[in-house]
Amino acid sequence: MRIVILGGDGYLGWPTAMHFASRGDEVLALDNYLRRRLARDTQSEPLLATPELPARCARFAALTGKHIEHRIVDCAEDGALTRVFAEFRPDAAVHFAEQPSAPYSMRGHDEARLTLRNNIGTTFELIWAVKRAAPQCHIVKLGSMGEYGTPDIDIEEGWIEIAHKGRKDRFLYPRAGGSLYHTSKILDTDLLEFETRANGLYATDLMQGPVYGHCSDEAKGDETLFPHFHYDDLFGTVINRFAAQAASGVPLTVYGKGHQRRGYLDLRDTLQCLALVVAAPPPPGKLRVFNQFTEIFSVLELAERVREVGRQLGLDVPIRAIGNPRRERDEHYYRPAHDGLLKLGLKPRWLSDDRLASMIEFVQRHRDAVDRTRILPRVSWV
Amino acid sequence: MRIVILGGDGYLGWPTAMHFASRGDEVLALDNYLRRRLARDTQSEPLLATPELPARCARFAALTGKHIEHRIVDCAEDGALTRVFAEFRPDAAVHFAEQPSAPYSMRGHDEARLTLRNNIGTTFELIWAVKRAAPQCHIVKLGSMGEYGTPDIDIEEGWIEIAHKGRKDRFLYPRAGGSLYHTSKILDTDLLEFETRANGLYATDLMQGPVYGHCSDEAKGDETLFPHFHYDDLFGTVINRFAAQAASGVPLTVYGKGHQRRGYLDLRDTLQCLALVVAAPPPPGKLRVFNQFTEIFSVLELAERVREVGRQLGLDVPIRAIGNPRRERDEHYYRPAHDGLLKLGLKPRWLSDDRLASMIEFVQRHRDAVDRTRILPRVSWV
Repeated sequence: MRIVILGGDGYLGWPTAMHFASRGDEVLALDNYLRRRLARDTQSEPLLATPELPARCARFAALTGKHIEHRIVDCAEDGALTRVFAEFRPDAAVHFAEQPSAPYSMRGHDEARLTLRNNIGTTFELIWAVKRAAPQCHIVKLGSMGEYGTPDIDIEEGWIEIAHKGRKDRFLYPRAGGSLYHTSKILDTDLLEFETRANGLYATDLMQGPVYGHCSDEAKGDETLFPHFHYDDLFGTVINRFAAQAASGVPLTVYGKGHQRRGYLDLRDTLQCLALVVAAPPPPGKLRVFNQFTEIFSVLELAERVREVGRQLGLDVPIRAIGNPRRERDEHYYRPAHDGLLKLGLKPRWLSDDRLASMIEFVQRHRDAVDRTRILPRVSWV
Repeated sequence: MRIVILGGDGYLGWPTAMHFASRGDEVLALDNYLRRRLARDTQSEPLLATPELPARCARFAALTGKHIEHRIVDCAEDGALTRVFAEFRPDAAVHFAEQPSAPYSMRGHDEARLTLRNNIGTTFELIWAVKRAAPQCHIVKLGSMGEYGTPDIDIEEGWIEIAHKGRKDRFLYPRAGGSLYHTSKILDTDLLEFETRANGLYATDLMQGPVYGHCSDEAKGDETLFPHFHYDDLFGTVINRFAAQAASGVPLTVYGKGHQRRGYLDLRDTLQCLALVVAAPPPPGKLRVFNQFTEIFSVLELAERVREVGRQLGLDVPIRAIGNPRRERDEHYYRPAHDGLLKLGLKPRWLSDDRLASMIEFVQRHRDAVDRTRILPRVSWV
């Protein structure tokens, strides 16, 4: 298959590019290095300086004999994606080209404006590239479980039948995000739902939970092929950050009571999900939504898991509760459905002590590179 | 009160400016003449060439002794509104600064891109102007009844309690628009809901139905103070367009079966609603939503009303069914709540034969200016 990856330089985008290329697909990775720039601007560079796309693609080709094509392009630029699609004619487009940090989006006006314009802009231009140059292309967009918030009823997979005053109808599940970033993902979903319905597009929206892991199998242990590993408060997701904190002697910072429950998944399961989704496009004209995670943990449970694995590695890992810088409930009902991907064939990897240990050991090897000043929350929006 | 009107040159914006100024409020009208430009670009100029803001404000002052301040500014421009708000310190901001045409938004990529960027951009900059320069300012945003689409259950006023699997919670009413324009209004609502909740803002969102009428009372019959009267397929709303068709001998073009039902209101009732809403701000932190219309008609009922009033004026007004250029159901359930504004004190003006006759006569006086080539649909998205 011909697969284009928007945001192909990112934490998920790069492993996805390797994953499809390893299977023999023709892969085109697009990126404008926005995440790299934002990380520099906010003193949030990843643990290791990752090579840029040309060097990564060359290294991957040398190691595996597989080719990943790449192009440096701003996917939100007027018409740029349409030109790429007219040439490459993708069968599927995996869309990761968004500013992914909730705290970054809450820093101030400029960060919020960038997040909104970039995220809606890339989705908009992707839709038009498909409509104008590749109408059969399956759009696979990354959404967020955070779009749903934490309602007091069960979270369904994207859609819900509502019975009301003796009648009923089916609707996009109502959403209420906790940050400007999450709101931008809601806007994305609304836009893609309309365009799919109005134009008979093939589209899947993946409501993903936080991902953990420092590498995927296709990197074959070569650290130059690992994705950006962020352990900072802005771009680091919680399990990766906790692993880095354990490895570098920084107490695990649990926000608030730590009873916030979320659905998590291993980076390698993200790749598994994407492969399953791309292999089975939905019928045209109706947005398909999957809730993409494998296990639910509270933040406190995660901290205790990391502490225990640290102990096995001979590390003393204290847990420290700090005021929650985010506007979110830390006691809440949480029962999100996640059957769709299991039915497609997903075989979950549960969060294991081995995976946590390998993440901690990875950071230990690069312990000198850890900047301890960028772990505590630098943005608050309570 | 100090009231700023975003889009103060528009069909609703200008009468609103006159309405508040007549009551003695301090009014600042902002506009960048976007609608004028789009009308020129698409051969959709209004029936009469309306004077620009400086001339209108001067004429209004000469006629009434009341002052309307104006400024030519792009409300979506980075930081522009914040500078205006820091100086003017409004008590209320009425937000009409959006591209308002569904067919225009469906013409192609460039029109869709402009609609999305302008409409979300103005709402975003307004929110930040309030947060940064006037946190007590009540945001009154114009939404659209079209955000709801035509679901098979009752439409509530913005929010709905959903009972699901033995539990319940309250949500923004799920929305599904029928055009890119309506989708942009949904995105607007989502964004304003989040920002209101996250920042304790005072905000009201008015889900308005199509408005009719060629003038408001404050113009005192002076046609230079009438708002843009659009009778074309892009910017003309249905009752205004039918009045123009009746006056100029163009058969009334009913789209599809004509059984599409919508809630309508008189332009003067829009002004009444705005005055009631501005006088009674909601508590902070929760977006208040009103469904703003007074009566429900099907398109066919409207055509028959206009034909009958035309007959009384000695006009032969044929009705002609044409293929629906819009993607919408023409047989559907429709029962939208609209109690909120009545409870605030709204006294509806029902659609009267007199109002229709005065609209038809207005167009008859300017019959030579009617361009009959811009009445039939020029954009289709079925």
